[in-house]
Amino acid sequence: MANAEGQWKQVLMLERLLQANELIAERLRERLTDAGVLLINMLSSPGSGKTTLLEATVKALSDKLRVGAILGDVATERDYERLSAYGVPAVQIVTGGECHLEAAMVEQAMHRLPIENLSVVFIENVGNLVCPAEFRLGEHFRVTLLSVPEGEDKVLKYPHAFRTADAVLITKVDLLEHVRFNVELAEGYIHSLNPNARVVKLSALTGYGLDEWLSLLLEWHKDVLQRVEL
Amino acid sequence: MANAEGQWKQVLMLERLLQANELIAERLRERLTDAGVLLINMLSSPGSGKTTLLEATVKALSDKLRVGAILGDVATERDYERLSAYGVPAVQIVTGGECHLEAAMVEQAMHRLPIENLSVVFIENVGNLVCPAEFRLGEHFRVTLLSVPEGEDKVLKYPHAFRTADAVLITKVDLLEHVRFNVELAEGYIHSLNPNARVVKLSALTGYGLDEWLSLLLEWHKDVLQRVEL
Repeated sequence: MANAEGQWKQVLMLERLLQANELIAERLRERLTDAGVLLINMLSSPGSGKTTLLEATVKALSDKLRVGAILGDVATERDYERLSAYGVPAVQIVTGGECHLEAAMVEQAMHRLPIENLSVVFIENVGNLVCPAEFRLGEHFRVTLLSVPEGEDKVLKYPHAFRTADAVLITKVDLLEHVRFNVELAEGYIHSLNPNARVVKLSALTGYGLDEWLSLLLEWHKDVLQRVEL
Repeated sequence: MANAEGQWKQVLMLERLLQANELIAERLRERLTDAGVLLINMLSSPGSGKTTLLEATVKALSDKLRVGAILGDVATERDYERLSAYGVPAVQIVTGGECHLEAAMVEQAMHRLPIENLSVVFIENVGNLVCPAEFRLGEHFRVTLLSVPEGEDKVLKYPHAFRTADAVLITKVDLLEHVRFNVELAEGYIHSLNPNARVVKLSALTGYGLDEWLSLLLEWHKDVLQRVEL
């Protein structure tokens, strides 16, 4: 029974880890709420367009909200370089093999951002639809991206990432005419798991849907500011 | 110091888990080598085209190699249904939250395949470029897919999956004219990490590169048959 006992210990340790993570996440969220800073956790597969969307968002938002970013990657600092080029205060977390970010990593990274000058901080999680869904990072809102070349069935295959999202962004819709992707079916899958999820169709390339996404960000930022007043 | 001790225990447990996995993987590989069955472990992001490539492979190979499949998914049995429609003996492993397959899961699934009638078994790992790279599943050869919409920088961002691959398949090349993807740069990144990796450019939609991929499979199958003779 050594094996069963080992497995039991593993389950216990994972539970403790998740509990500790929740506590840190809660502390971080409160701190940002007090500062009036909206925190958004972005989840997706590798290459579904998180950084490109952030670039487009920063360009469009610059006069309305001041943006900062925390970028999680297994290796490389490429996203940091891309966003710094836009003048975005950014911190790169290189996890060195870890498949997700945890709240403690984000809390530490936050010390290196000038949050007193920011209105919104985006966390680009590690590109992975499985593990990151388990860990809250103190975000006020969670966004999961699904790019059309991935196929609409990914919603059902990786349900936790879509069930826990406040908004699902269907990205790269400029490719719809070149790939098999049924938008209606995708929306049906998303709402079957998560009836209240906002769904926004986007192309950072053509600008399609960007206005809707920016309105959502402004609405969420207002929501955080109202929480401070309460 | 309770925290440091906890972390140390976690590292120890992960090491033991990986060691146990290696032993099972080795046992499984030997069993399949003796049976003359080529075992291939396929890694990729969600939606990079593993199942579509398998469908095309089965259609093209039917008179040359008899194909079986083991399909790993966090949820759903969709890939099982897709491949069964082609008459492929297939077993679905639904991991229920786990982000990767382990050798013990594959060994158990193998009991439900008629391996005495097969020449090659493909394992479709969970769509994830991080965790699956750590776990050997008894494969003779490992294949990592990179679809062009993901961008060539994913090679550097998820290096372990590309460093440990025997072949890297650049998929969906029919989309090259619609997305930013530099094939030469991708090949350079792959070979900087893994000088001996074979790189095959593929489109399961148009059939581009399929012949090269099928030749590689026949060559690998021959290689396994020769191991039996040794």
